[in-house]
Amino acid sequence: MISEKMVGLVKNSSVIRAMFEEGKRLAGIYGAENVFDFSLGNPSVEPPIEIKEAILQVINEENPNLVHGYMNNSGYEDVRANIAKSINQKFGTAFDENNIIMTVGAAGGLNVILKTLLDPGDEVITFAPFFGEYRNYVSNFDGKLVVVSPNTVNFQPNLTEFEQKLSSKTKAVLINTPNNPTGVVYSEQTIMELAEILNKKQKEYGTSIYLISDEPYRELAYDGVEVPYLTKYYQNTIVGYSFSKSLSLPGERIGYLVIPKEIDDFQDVYAASNVANRILGYVNAPSLIQRAVAKCLDAKVDIEIYNRNRELLYNSLISYGYQCVKPQGAFYLFVKTPDEDDKAFAQAAKEHNILIVAGSAFGCPGYCRIVYCVDYSMIERSLPGFKKLAEQYGL
Amino acid sequence: MISEKMVGLVKNSSVIRAMFEEGKRLAGIYGAENVFDFSLGNPSVEPPIEIKEAILQVINEENPNLVHGYMNNSGYEDVRANIAKSINQKFGTAFDENNIIMTVGAAGGLNVILKTLLDPGDEVITFAPFFGEYRNYVSNFDGKLVVVSPNTVNFQPNLTEFEQKLSSKTKAVLINTPNNPTGVVYSEQTIMELAEILNKKQKEYGTSIYLISDEPYRELAYDGVEVPYLTKYYQNTIVGYSFSKSLSLPGERIGYLVIPKEIDDFQDVYAASNVANRILGYVNAPSLIQRAVAKCLDAKVDIEIYNRNRELLYNSLISYGYQCVKPQGAFYLFVKTPDEDDKAFAQAAKEHNILIVAGSAFGCPGYCRIVYCVDYSMIERSLPGFKKLAEQYGL
Repeated sequence: MISEKMVGLVKNSSVIRAMFEEGKRLAGIYGAENVFDFSLGNPSVEPPIEIKEAILQVINEENPNLVHGYMNNSGYEDVRANIAKSINQKFGTAFDENNIIMTVGAAGGLNVILKTLLDPGDEVITFAPFFGEYRNYVSNFDGKLVVVSPNTVNFQPNLTEFEQKLSSKTKAVLINTPNNPTGVVYSEQTIMELAEILNKKQKEYGTSIYLISDEPYRELAYDGVEVPYLTKYYQNTIVGYSFSKSLSLPGERIGYLVIPKEIDDFQDVYAASNVANRILGYVNAPSLIQRAVAKCLDAKVDIEIYNRNRELLYNSLISYGYQCVKPQGAFYLFVKTPDEDDKAFAQAAKEHNILIVAGSAFGCPGYCRIVYCVDYSMIERSLPGFKKLAEQYGL
Repeated sequence: MISEKMVGLVKNSSVIRAMFEEGKRLAGIYGAENVFDFSLGNPSVEPPIEIKEAILQVINEENPNLVHGYMNNSGYEDVRANIAKSINQKFGTAFDENNIIMTVGAAGGLNVILKTLLDPGDEVITFAPFFGEYRNYVSNFDGKLVVVSPNTVNFQPNLTEFEQKLSSKTKAVLINTPNNPTGVVYSEQTIMELAEILNKKQKEYGTSIYLISDEPYRELAYDGVEVPYLTKYYQNTIVGYSFSKSLSLPGERIGYLVIPKEIDDFQDVYAASNVANRILGYVNAPSLIQRAVAKCLDAKVDIEIYNRNRELLYNSLISYGYQCVKPQGAFYLFVKTPDEDDKAFAQAAKEHNILIVAGSAFGCPGYCRIVYCVDYSMIERSLPGFKKLAEQYGL
């Protein structure tokens, strides 16, 4: 009796559920400390202390009807103004509160902007490997996700194929840097070339093509690498941000959209995003946590903890013979599977109590995603398993 | 360049915005204390003190990665178990955590269950007058909202017309009691008749027709009136609840769905709702506030404050000659407009600095909605205006 669209989605989700149940089953047999779950991107580093202090301050000092009440669907004006100011300071932009819409995480923000932009049949281009939920978000509004195949040399986007896949139906391009699942940061060179292609194609088709930058991992960048701020490279850029990883608050569902005045049809896009936020049932981003994050815009989780994990796991896997592009951001390794069949490899890993996700889930078979937002000691305990697995495959 | 669907919605929303701006303009001329805004359902009573205490307790005593982290898309298991237990105690039901899905408010819950159930073209029946957002929620999933015309005698649903409008395409019936905008509580007799009709039609068509009960106003009931718990009257009932009004937390976006085991295709509906919660971009209901409300399930705002407002406003308007069914719940009066053109009446009210919403917005022209979740003193100050307005119309 459920919707036809949902039938397939429920089947898929029961696969994930089965994996979760399998983890519990293994923990029951071997003990939780001997099961190594690298499958879920749930931040393991504690939120910075500033968050607790900010929540206490809001609760103790502000009017409860203000703190817990309705505000404009776009969010509190002072919160949006603070966020705009903070972005301007960091990136030399010139936003104000009328460029910001507070959203229910980045997922909420992406749904809001896709609802705003997409007519049925409109195309959204993304680059494999990509976060699998993009498929669902685009499908929510009867759009068509067009996938550019992966460039497995360095996981920078394949711009030649990108140019070929752009069409008069392309409404948006959805990118994610630092990237889930590769951890790769798109270089400034890449961004500039991408922008050039987009400008050329906009002119050719006489259309507006919006670049949507999904940025939950912006603050998780290592080795001093710079993550370019995309509104500075391409005029029709919209940014979707989340505090889920930068402040370890994924359960709170708090993020924002940046909609620059310079984009085509700014007034309509901003007004429609405000309405979409309402009618999609979000109504507004959660109120208390809006007020709290606005006080913590310079706070960050201790990313050195992730960095240590990255170094240990990357160096160990390379020394065992695995191949992997060293990630400069996020908290994922995207490793070439020694078995061509990535699902078979994930299955084989499970024999060593190692849980990982096959690359197929991200549109990139022949790879697997290993999440390192986990305890350092769990990585240490898992290494003998990874080593045996490598030997098994003759690496 | 925005989606065609959104163009009309943006136009509508600019009407509301214009009203808001008008309020600000009037306040600028006459002073804020001389403008009487009865247009917005933003709870004016403070959240109970238990909420502040619960938030402090969660923040000070629980693990921050648990409090702010991801959990199952349905919500924390212990939170769901507590809520199920509390419903069981109050209504003699037999739910457990596997019947509850925590949602981003009732609006989030309605979108989740409609996404779960609706194929394009499926019909959802509701009774005028109704909360205008229902139209958008159903349209989000390409469903068709079928409206039963109002029974203006007592604003109980018109069941004769309801029976005629049920069809083999009816997937769901959406009701809201205590009702926005009338404040009327559907009687047990009404509910029993409604259930009988639904059972008959399910049999006739060989279909499942889900009754979705939107219950943000459940706890706001006066005169000791009982609000029947609908799962006890009709097997295919799904409840959408919100803490927005019961605890004055509308900005926090926290509510839940109750999906009883007894409904047709329970397993699929529950699993699909869980998935819908994720792919609609909610992911999960906000985490800290989930944990906080679970500690406050017996707390309530002081509804005597709303009750005093209700008595003052109702008695005054009646004494001036207005006609209105006395509401037993929520915080709205739905008053017959002495002008047949309800929009013209709302305009005339504005001449007295009184802001109200025309009944047309709720599918019921010839009436207007007056919100009384406002300061008692504002009601007092507004009364001379309401009186003059009545005289103007010869009441």
